[in-house]
Amino acid sequence: MRNVSAQSLSENRIIRLLQSMFQDKSPALKKGIGDDAAVIRIQNSQEYWLLTTDMLLENIDFRRGWTTPRQLGYKSLAVNLSDLAAMGARPRFYTVSLALPEGFTGRWILEFYRGLAELGNGQGVLLVGGDLSRSEDGILVSIAALGESAGRKVLYRSGGRAGDILYVTGVLGRSAAGFKLLEDGCVRPRSRPQLEALRAHQKPEPRCDAGMWLAQCGWVNCMMDLSDGLSVDLPRLCAASGVSAEIDASVLPIFRRSAVWGCDPVSLALHGGEDFELLFAVPNSKARTLEANYPVKLPKITRIGAMIRGAGKVWISEGGRNRCRLIEKGFDHFRRNTSRNLFRSK
Amino acid sequence: MRNVSAQSLSENRIIRLLQSMFQDKSPALKKGIGDDAAVIRIQNSQEYWLLTTDMLLENIDFRRGWTTPRQLGYKSLAVNLSDLAAMGARPRFYTVSLALPEGFTGRWILEFYRGLAELGNGQGVLLVGGDLSRSEDGILVSIAALGESAGRKVLYRSGGRAGDILYVTGVLGRSAAGFKLLEDGCVRPRSRPQLEALRAHQKPEPRCDAGMWLAQCGWVNCMMDLSDGLSVDLPRLCAASGVSAEIDASVLPIFRRSAVWGCDPVSLALHGGEDFELLFAVPNSKARTLEANYPVKLPKITRIGAMIRGAGKVWISEGGRNRCRLIEKGFDHFRRNTSRNLFRSK
Repeated sequence: MRNVSAQSLSENRIIRLLQSMFQDKSPALKKGIGDDAAVIRIQNSQEYWLLTTDMLLENIDFRRGWTTPRQLGYKSLAVNLSDLAAMGARPRFYTVSLALPEGFTGRWILEFYRGLAELGNGQGVLLVGGDLSRSEDGILVSIAALGESAGRKVLYRSGGRAGDILYVTGVLGRSAAGFKLLEDGCVRPRSRPQLEALRAHQKPEPRCDAGMWLAQCGWVNCMMDLSDGLSVDLPRLCAASGVSAEIDASVLPIFRRSAVWGCDPVSLALHGGEDFELLFAVPNSKARTLEANYPVKLPKITRIGAMIRGAGKVWISEGGRNRCRLIEKGFDHFRRNTSRNLFRSK
Repeated sequence: MRNVSAQSLSENRIIRLLQSMFQDKSPALKKGIGDDAAVIRIQNSQEYWLLTTDMLLENIDFRRGWTTPRQLGYKSLAVNLSDLAAMGARPRFYTVSLALPEGFTGRWILEFYRGLAELGNGQGVLLVGGDLSRSEDGILVSIAALGESAGRKVLYRSGGRAGDILYVTGVLGRSAAGFKLLEDGCVRPRSRPQLEALRAHQKPEPRCDAGMWLAQCGWVNCMMDLSDGLSVDLPRLCAASGVSAEIDASVLPIFRRSAVWGCDPVSLALHGGEDFELLFAVPNSKARTLEANYPVKLPKITRIGAMIRGAGKVWISEGGRNRCRLIEKGFDHFRRNTSRNLFRSK
């Protein structure tokens, strides 16, 4: 709500009021407001069903000139599947609402749906409904996705404990490096790293397979996806788990090659948003076992630090030196640092 | 897609292409694209789960000056619950995404959520997630709702047969009469009929209880909700069922008192949208039984005509006289006659 001027009520008060207004009263609700997706118990079923939603708005979440309709369709679904991946669920079904101003061609619309199908078919998730309407101006996409847990194995943001080892999947700061390229007018990549960076920004891969494996292996205490950047998301994981954390900048899986086009890879790894990688914590005693058993076909995982006693604070060092507080600073795309995650960050 | 200029592809071609792109391939999907909600089979469960979504955009679906934030929250949820009611499902959970331009107060936001809670609590449906973000301009609301069938008793748009008696719940054209009042600058009602009309437009009651009863009684062949007006929605029901229909204007449950403020009640009953009443078909042999057993506490039902052999055409008469084709003419609110229901009307 930082971008919405709360003239008479503070943000914290609004959140408290909403939480009291929408208490989870149903025994069918395992987890409501406050995580990446809601977790629903179905009678007689061995599985939980997970529901999530995300809306993408032109000039807030994307620019028309920086994305093809196909990339937009792909990414709109990807950000939703990432929420399901964050809890270890298999994506199953989704709906999509698309609103367009006058003048869009049928070809544009089909390309958008082709982008949805490209990702959806690969992940085995089916489009089951939605609508297409006119907007006054600007493209709007809203998707809701339904996933299924394997048995009752779901990971939450809560559950991490002091001493747990922190891991991330993949590479951090690559999507933000792609955003920088677009911002600098580079729509067509001139090298392989540029291609990778643009691809990470325009067509991010939700980590569904890794998420499901991590939920099912039984060694992970808590998990979330990195949508707003490590410096914003890690404090959320810590707060939900009731701990603090310490990370080591020198071991972060940064996207080093972005330095070629003027980026600071460490800064982007810490503050760049939209990587859609997974962040998770494993008890120290299980960390080696997990590493030894983690399938090679899945995106690599990297130890970045540990959870420590405390109350939601994050410390950063370089190999143990220059230890200081990590400032929460989401990468300023269009609306980084807004409170789109009101319902998620408790 | 009528409002989206399809320069190179016809609307029908786009729909055909989308249908081939998103075929319902999963045995877990009882019904995908093409009805009011998707119907999902859950392993080991005796019930189906139904998923629907609807987006409301400022100046397309509503005007800021014509609605309080509380009414907007209420109505946003109501239109989604109406889709579940249309198939006989009990609403269970929903998510809401709200995007607001700069300058909205915390009080406005809370009032919006109070509107959601007012309807949601009454219907036993729980808010389980969503987000709140900034928009460039204009208020946007997107809701996804999940409902549960009673056993496997779900009603579809298909299933109607020639000879079936057609019924509607409640009163038709009341919401459109309220819209007319607002259009004429009457924000505060000066009579009870005006109050009723404004209320029907601003806080429509989804017919959840009636929908569930009708699905469970076993005498109904097909059902849908009236969101775009009888002259638009009845041909959809007919097309899905592979029949035509004949209705009698003289028996329609019109909102007669709107004539006082210059409306044509019959025209609004035929072409007025957003009544969110239920339209359903019952075999002639069961009609009297249904009427005799229909609970008095539920909104009244009215016979309006019958299904006949044919291919999606609707005929109208006045007590059998002046029989002619009913022209499809959705009431022109802001975007009546757009193809928001691309996925629904087959």
